[in-house]
Amino acid sequence: MYIPQDTNSLLTILQQRRENLAQLVNFPVILWSGKANPRNFAANRFPFRASSHFLYFAGLSLENAAIRLENGELELFIADSNPDSALWHGETLPVAKIADLIGAKGCYPLEKLSERAENCATVCVQDMFTSFLQANVLSRPIYPSNAPEDIDLELAKAMVKLRLCHDTNSISEIKRAVNVSVAAHKAGIKATVTAQKEAEVRAAMEAEILANNMCCSYNSIVTVNGEILHNETYFNKLQKGDLLLADVGAETPLGWAADLTRTFPVRGKFTHSQRDIYEVVLAAHDQCIAQVSPNIEYKDIHLLAAQIITEGLIDLGILKGDPEDLVNRDVHALFFPHGIGHLLGLDVHDMEDLGDLAGYEENRRRSNRFGLGYLRLNRPLKSGMIVTIEPGFYQVSAILNNPTFRDKYRDDLNWDKLANFADVKGIRIEDDILVTESGNQVLSSALPTQIADLEQL
Amino acid sequence: MYIPQDTNSLLTILQQRRENLAQLVNFPVILWSGKANPRNFAANRFPFRASSHFLYFAGLSLENAAIRLENGELELFIADSNPDSALWHGETLPVAKIADLIGAKGCYPLEKLSERAENCATVCVQDMFTSFLQANVLSRPIYPSNAPEDIDLELAKAMVKLRLCHDTNSISEIKRAVNVSVAAHKAGIKATVTAQKEAEVRAAMEAEILANNMCCSYNSIVTVNGEILHNETYFNKLQKGDLLLADVGAETPLGWAADLTRTFPVRGKFTHSQRDIYEVVLAAHDQCIAQVSPNIEYKDIHLLAAQIITEGLIDLGILKGDPEDLVNRDVHALFFPHGIGHLLGLDVHDMEDLGDLAGYEENRRRSNRFGLGYLRLNRPLKSGMIVTIEPGFYQVSAILNNPTFRDKYRDDLNWDKLANFADVKGIRIEDDILVTESGNQVLSSALPTQIADLEQL
Repeated sequence: MYIPQDTNSLLTILQQRRENLAQLVNFPVILWSGKANPRNFAANRFPFRASSHFLYFAGLSLENAAIRLENGELELFIADSNPDSALWHGETLPVAKIADLIGAKGCYPLEKLSERAENCATVCVQDMFTSFLQANVLSRPIYPSNAPEDIDLELAKAMVKLRLCHDTNSISEIKRAVNVSVAAHKAGIKATVTAQKEAEVRAAMEAEILANNMCCSYNSIVTVNGEILHNETYFNKLQKGDLLLADVGAETPLGWAADLTRTFPVRGKFTHSQRDIYEVVLAAHDQCIAQVSPNIEYKDIHLLAAQIITEGLIDLGILKGDPEDLVNRDVHALFFPHGIGHLLGLDVHDMEDLGDLAGYEENRRRSNRFGLGYLRLNRPLKSGMIVTIEPGFYQVSAILNNPTFRDKYRDDLNWDKLANFADVKGIRIEDDILVTESGNQVLSSALPTQIADLEQL
Repeated sequence: MYIPQDTNSLLTILQQRRENLAQLVNFPVILWSGKANPRNFAANRFPFRASSHFLYFAGLSLENAAIRLENGELELFIADSNPDSALWHGETLPVAKIADLIGAKGCYPLEKLSERAENCATVCVQDMFTSFLQANVLSRPIYPSNAPEDIDLELAKAMVKLRLCHDTNSISEIKRAVNVSVAAHKAGIKATVTAQKEAEVRAAMEAEILANNMCCSYNSIVTVNGEILHNETYFNKLQKGDLLLADVGAETPLGWAADLTRTFPVRGKFTHSQRDIYEVVLAAHDQCIAQVSPNIEYKDIHLLAAQIITEGLIDLGILKGDPEDLVNRDVHALFFPHGIGHLLGLDVHDMEDLGDLAGYEENRRRSNRFGLGYLRLNRPLKSGMIVTIEPGFYQVSAILNNPTFRDKYRDDLNWDKLANFADVKGIRIEDDILVTESGNQVLSSALPTQIADLEQL
């Protein structure tokens, strides 16, 4: 298990977070870390990843543990390692030492948890085994984390209040993740000059992450089919003239995520058509980032991206008409079907386990509109939030060949013009932005976005 | 999803496997592929890995699918992709086309499975969500895969009969996994010349696997603390004089595993003490491999390793006494506490999900002896089996500082001599061996084991 060097400063922050929680709820809370999932047999497991809510207060990635929080104090409940453990896994830190590191008031075997479980709230974890344990220990049903009830709902709302804006520790963790992700992208761009397969570029990028003792915060997307938004295979060959879209982010050993995307040419040079569309997406990217500051509605940034992309596509002759009218009728979503970004934190889509509770301001709901329904964040920005800005352009066959859309938007598109851009399948440019008192800080600014810089790397 | 190039030859083998099953059981069988496990939220998932028993008959890594096998014929049941799927995951192969590729007699929505579930046997999968589905569809309790009952037990025994010995397809898949693993180890040895951290060597090795569109068949062990047998962290710095133990294996996209270990010096040269112990382990490795052939008891190969290691340690002055007597009293297990190896196939410990059903010949049970209890395979070898041979030497603190052991084996050890070998924490040399009619074939023979070769790489 990873132990950070500066455990004192971690401890101070953890205690602050627990005190902040105590200001928000007047009931005790138990949070479970969860267990590793078996892969093809019990001893062959996926890497353990502790629940984010647990990590927020416990700091360390302790497997099969629970913390009880009340009045700003933490009690640690953790399974005793079995007698074989020292043989197979080495001497582990004594639990009392772990308890010290995270400032626990007490440390008990996991079996004792039921005795301290009365009237406690919780958040349902992702692994089913532990979620049953939660119901068992709390002697009541536990609903999925995106549909909590009663005190669990109150707790979820408190978690959102706490985790929406980052403290010095989480900002510095996310910066570490971002820095390693920047290095990974630079390695990927460099590898693309000679690589023959998507898989080689993915390998070069993830190797950079692994070499820094981090893991991927999500399954990498590294593909010449950038129009497949969640493409997680790497079987294609790279050919001169292809654009490669790489959406790859690191996660620190304490669980904090980065999320970056770049799109770059396979043999060092954009074609004219690729360059034209890239500049449209980049304009949206730059102008949206410039807007990031406290009190700005994130949805307005999304609509700004839609507007800029629409204007750009009109300039290129692909769309026809008045930009504002086109955006109001969701024409932009033919090519930019997703939202402009999301919250970033312990989860790459931060707190998405709570449904839209974190992403959407109270009393706001997802839109049914084609051009707004995939927006993951709809709140006024606040200092301390970290968000992604990730406009894109895609030629998604399921959209462009959808008969309803073709009919509805027939007069808005110049299909012949569009055919000239057949070598632009998918472009996305994504950065991680900290909202500051005075505006914003682009955490990933060390990774170039300009065509000239990408071609030189 | 990965589709192999030569689907015809895959199809022929799949049909053969199904016919073989029909010879062994007279009831219908349903096997589920399983589902990907969520990581920190539902949409952020661990990579999907289909159940091995499913893969054996279905060939392709289809998520959330089930196959019904009867009289050598296969019916495919698979969830229809939801309407959003084409937008996010691209156009997928139509299910009818998939059914064709794997030679299904029919193809139906997953919801229809209950109608065909009467009196069917199954093997419980690893993910809990699907295991509940199994009980639901079959309308009866499903016991864990290592404790099946009634027809499920009969099916498990049939699976063992089928999967113990490999066919041409599985041998060629495992050879592919081995070849990529060999390349990964060579990259690791090379990286160790300059790498500053364990993590860098791990990254170099796994990058080779990823670049070949494979994944790791288990969590890599890459550590200067080789005495921690299942060490899965990579936080140590590398220092001149350290030995690095790397146990890393690839898995093909169709699920077939390799499993290789090498131990090599951090800055290119073994010390004298490291060389002395390495040669002992290597002698055990070479002589054990030479023994691999049909009808040989695998347990005897394990005991041969124990004998050779014991003799070697006597020669070095670490142990005292008669080798045979020492092995009978498990003294070897102070330094070689695990078994000489295991079955290899779709699982890196093949069929370990079935407990010892595959590893142990009928009517044999695990020994309680310290020096035999961790032996995973206890059967006479047969042509077509693939096994690992992986002797080792470790100074495990939990063993060597165990008061019971220290007392019991006081007169068998020369502790002062042992102190001279303090820089030998853990050494293991592991290869993958196919049992052939006439003896064996070392599938990983392209990866050197000799000190001179390792120092030159």
